[in-house]
This record gives sequence, structure tokens and C-alpha cells, in this order.
Amino acid sequence: MDGWHETAIRVRYAETDKMGIVHHANYLIWFEAARSELCRSHGFSYREMEADGLLMLVAESYLRYKSPAFYEDELVIRTKVAEVRSRSIRFVYEVYRPDDDILVAEGETMHLMTGIDKKIRLIPEHYKVMLIGDDEQRERAFPANQAPS
Amino acid sequence: MDGWHETAIRVRYAETDKMGIVHHANYLIWFEAARSELCRSHGFSYREMEADGLLMLVAESYLRYKSPAFYEDELVIRTKVAEVRSRSIRFVYEVYRPDDDILVAEGETMHLMTGIDKKIRLIPEHYKVMLIGDDEQRERAFPANQAPS
Amino acid sequence: MDGWHETAIRVRYAETDKMGIVHHANYLIWFEAARSELCRSHGFSYREMEADGLLMLVAESYLRYKSPAFYEDELVIRTKVAEVRSRSIRFVYEVYRPDDDILVAEGETMHLMTGIDKKIRLIPEHYKVMLIGDDEQRERAFPANQAPS
Amino acid sequence: MDGWHETAIRVRYAETDKMGIVHHANYLIWFEAARSELCRSHGFSYREMEADGLLMLVAESYLRYKSPAFYEDELVIRTKVAEVRSRSIRFVYEVYRPDDDILVAEGETMHLMTGIDKKIRLIPEHYKVMLIGDDEQRERAFPANQAPS
Repeated sequence: MDGWHETAIRVRYAETDKMGIVHHANYLIWFEAARSELCRSHGFSYREMEADGLLMLVAESYLRYKSPAFYEDELVIRTKVAEVRSRSIRFVYEVYRPDDDILVAEGETMHLMTGIDKKIRLIPEHYKVMLIGDDEQRERAFPANQAPS
Repeated sequence: MDGWHETAIRVRYAETDKMGIVHHANYLIWFEAARSELCRSHGFSYREMEADGLLMLVAESYLRYKSPAFYEDELVIRTKVAEVRSRSIRFVYEVYRPDDDILVAEGETMHLMTGIDKKIRLIPEHYKVMLIGDDEQRERAFPANQAPS
Repeated sequence: MDGWHETAIRVRYAETDKMGIVHHANYLIWFEAARSELCRSHGFSYREMEADGLLMLVAESYLRYKSPAFYEDELVIRTKVAEVRSRSIRFVYEVYRPDDDILVAEGETMHLMTGIDKKIRLIPEHYKVMLIGDDEQRERAFPANQAPS
Repeated sequence: MDGWHETAIRVRYAETDKMGIVHHANYLIWFEAARSELCRSHGFSYREMEADGLLMLVAESYLRYKSPAFYEDELVIRTKVAEVRSRSIRFVYEVYRPDDDILVAEGETMHLMTGIDKKIRLIPEHYKVMLIGDDEQRERAFPANQAPS
């Protein structure tokens, strides 16, 4: 595994606009759904993390729209944790359509860890470990002698 | 004044769908914006009411779509408090386009007053008075000898 | 089969509002996604129907919100064609959460068949047959001696 | 005037999420509404441009969220045409809240001019002139001896 998580979605009618294609704001909503699934696949629920008083506030987003997507298209959102720092996390995304193997869009979001008060704070080590995810990457991130307990 | 409050909106691109018209879910969002303005015009802010721990949960909605609306259309949402009971409020709405005087849609929403815990509770008298709004209607709702203090 | 089609969705973060629950306009969007899946399960694609120049314009919607739904909830939309007339179709819906077997909402939408010009027209017989769906109901709707060819 | 156009919006309930703040996807929708108003202030309607068979497809978007915005906040979207090239236009945006003079977000979108077929094409000169907008900038873009007729 190279760290990419895949989330399948089907384009809803309401997600299209009068150009007949997916409205560009929806990609941010799909990225968010994909992050939520990535967290679950990494062993924790973003919902529970919020219930624990931790928020991953979106601080930046970047999107490049490569090719339009259409109503009822089946799309795959590929998501990866690109970087985990002491107070921030960066995700990267690719949206493609398996039917014709077209890259529809690609993007990036940067998040700050905050408490309920929206004040920035350190990411707790166990969340860092889970966000980073697979064993090999974890190995690199936490060499044996400094692994979080 | 007959109790109708008017809110002007302009149709956004994102509110259209591939039919080239306003997607039908947006009317509920406009009704909500119109309720918020109606509250302000009746002397209170819905935001502050929520900060006071009171929510007006939507319990029912009904919509009849009469004629399509289009991108950049200027529309007017006419809103009225139709009924205030001890625990519920009913609003009615009309959406029309002044340019050609077309009735675009009409609808109704019914709300339950709850606390932050989403448990149903009595509507405090001073909110009742403000919701009912104009003097004449207030008169009927609260005859002199039983007016809320 | 009693004519109900089931569509599973997971609540997205963007679908919540500051009350911490699903915003009530999203149910109309989910109903639409569920109609699209019902059509596919009945042997046709709504996308292709539109490509054929036929639209199912929403003429009315009714919703009763019974219990709030939350971020990351897995919900099931049960959808059924309630009535097919010469120019209109009525769908009914139930949204429930299998985890605790709670009925979250129920609703209804009424649609008019139109051409690209948004003028009302007769529903072609073969679409009627597919909309009605299962064999038994089809039998009742089209007794042997008047079946569409 | 330095080329900035201002558009006022008020945050709708549906635009908030369970964090209690504006969901980050809405900024793209506001930017779009602001572009539409900027076009009108520059003497043309984006709706009519599309009716003429010209689309300004979004090719890139970038957003930096600086400070959360809240339900019922009155916000101002400042918009400017940053660059007009032969086939593309770049807009920049600032969202601020006049009440406390806070910069809420800033961003950028890049658009490609296409026909109805979504194929990239040259921006017609008269649209270039109107997009660029004010006289002084127009002067620089089209010196006297090569002004579009």
C-alpha cells in the first residue's frame, strides 16, 4: 500500500449546475467525505475525534479541475496524508473516473488541529500515529527509540 | 402591513442544476434565510435566540414548485408567521419574480421549539409576542387582560 | 418485493449545520439520489432518459422530520413509486438509521413529465412500465389485453 | 477605484456546519456570486455571456481560511480581475467582516474561456475590455493604436 485510500461516490443531480457538469464547490465536499473514510480506514472515527474535543479546521484548499464530471458518473476520490506536523496535517487528493480512466480533478487541503475553542494546539501522538497510517511510514515517522507509547 | 415580510435574493450559479433551473432543494434554504430576516424585522435575532438555548427545529416542510427560476433571477421571498402555538410555529412562504410577476413557488414549514438538548419545550411568551409581530395580530393573540408582562 | 428500493448513504460533514444535525434541505437531495438508484434498479438510467429529452420536473415535495440524523450516520433511504399517472409520478420515501432502527424522516415528491422545453407531456408507455417496476404491479397496471407493445 | 468590486452577503444557516462556523466550500459559491456582480458592474451579464455561447470554466481555485465566519454574519466579498490573457482570466478575492474588520478568507480562481462544447477558445476582445474594466487599466491593456473596434 502506498498510503492512498479510495472512496467511491456517484454524482448527484443537485451537484450539477446549468453548465451540465459538476459544480466546482462539490469537490471540497467530496474531499471531506474521503478524509472521513480515510480516518476510518486508519482505525479512528473523525466524529469521535471531535467528540474528544479535537477539530481539524481547514486552513487552505487548492483545486485543479482537469476534466468535467457529469451526473451519475461513478468517481473515485484517492486520498493520502501528505504531511503530519506538530499542529497541522496536509492531505492530497485525486478524483478520477474509472469508466474512461480520466483524471477529473486534483487537490490539496491543509488543516490545523484545534480544540473546541478553535485555538490551535498540538496533535496528540496517538492521532499522529493513526493519521500517518501504514506501518512502513509509521516506522519512518517514529523510529524505534522515540516511538510514542 | 398584513404580516408578510419580504426578502430579496438573487439566484446563484451553484443553485442551478443541469436542467438549467434552480434546484428544488434551495427553496428550503431561502425560506430559512427569509425566516432569519423576518425575525430581525420583528425585533430579535434568531442567532441570539439560539445563543439563549432555544432552537426552532424544522418538523415539516411542504413545497409546491409553480414555475422554474433561473440563474441571476431576482426573486422575492414573502414570509409570514401563520400560526404560533404553545410549542410550535408555522410559517408560510411565496417566492415570486417581480420582473414578470410570476409566482415561482409556495410553501410552508412547521417548527418545534426545543432546548439545546433538542427536547420540545414551551415557547417563552416574549418570543411568542415577537414572532406574532404586528400590533393588530398581537392584540388578537394577547387580549388586554392576559397580555404577557 | 413490495416495491421499495433501498439506497444507503453516509452523512457528510457539509450536510450538517450549526445545530450539529443534518440540515433539513439535504433530505431532498438524498431523495433525488434514491430516485436515480430506483430507476437504475428498474432497468433504466435517469441520465439517459434526460438525454432522450424527457425530464421529471419536481412539482411538489413534502417532508416530515421525525428524529435528527448526525454526521457519519449510515442512513437508508427507502423509495417507492407510489403512483404513475399519464403525466405525473409520485414517489414516497422513508429515511431510517439501521444502527438504532430509528425513522429519521419520511416524505413524498410529485413530478411532472416534461420535454426539454419544460412543457408537460405524456409519459411514454415504456417508461411507465419501467417506473412501475415489479411484475405483479405491472400486471395490475397493464392487464394482458392492453399491455404496451 | 482600484478595480475591487464589493459584494455583501449574509451567512445563511445552511452554510454553517456542526463546528458552528461557515463550511469552507461555501466560499467558492460566494466567489461565484461576487464574479457575477463584478460582471454586472463592468457592464455585462454573465448570464447573457453564456446565452451567447461563452463559458468561463473554473480551472483552478485556491483558498486560505484566516478566521471563521458565523451564522448571520454580514460579510463583504472583495473581487478583482487580476489577469486577462488570451484564453484565461484570473480573479482574486478577499472576504472580510466589516463589524470587527476581520479578514475571514482570501482566494483566487482561474478560468478558461470555452464554447458550449467546453473546448477552449479565445476571449472575444469586447469581453476582454469589459472584464478589465476601469478606464485606466483599459488604457494600458489597449493602447490607442491597437484598441479593439
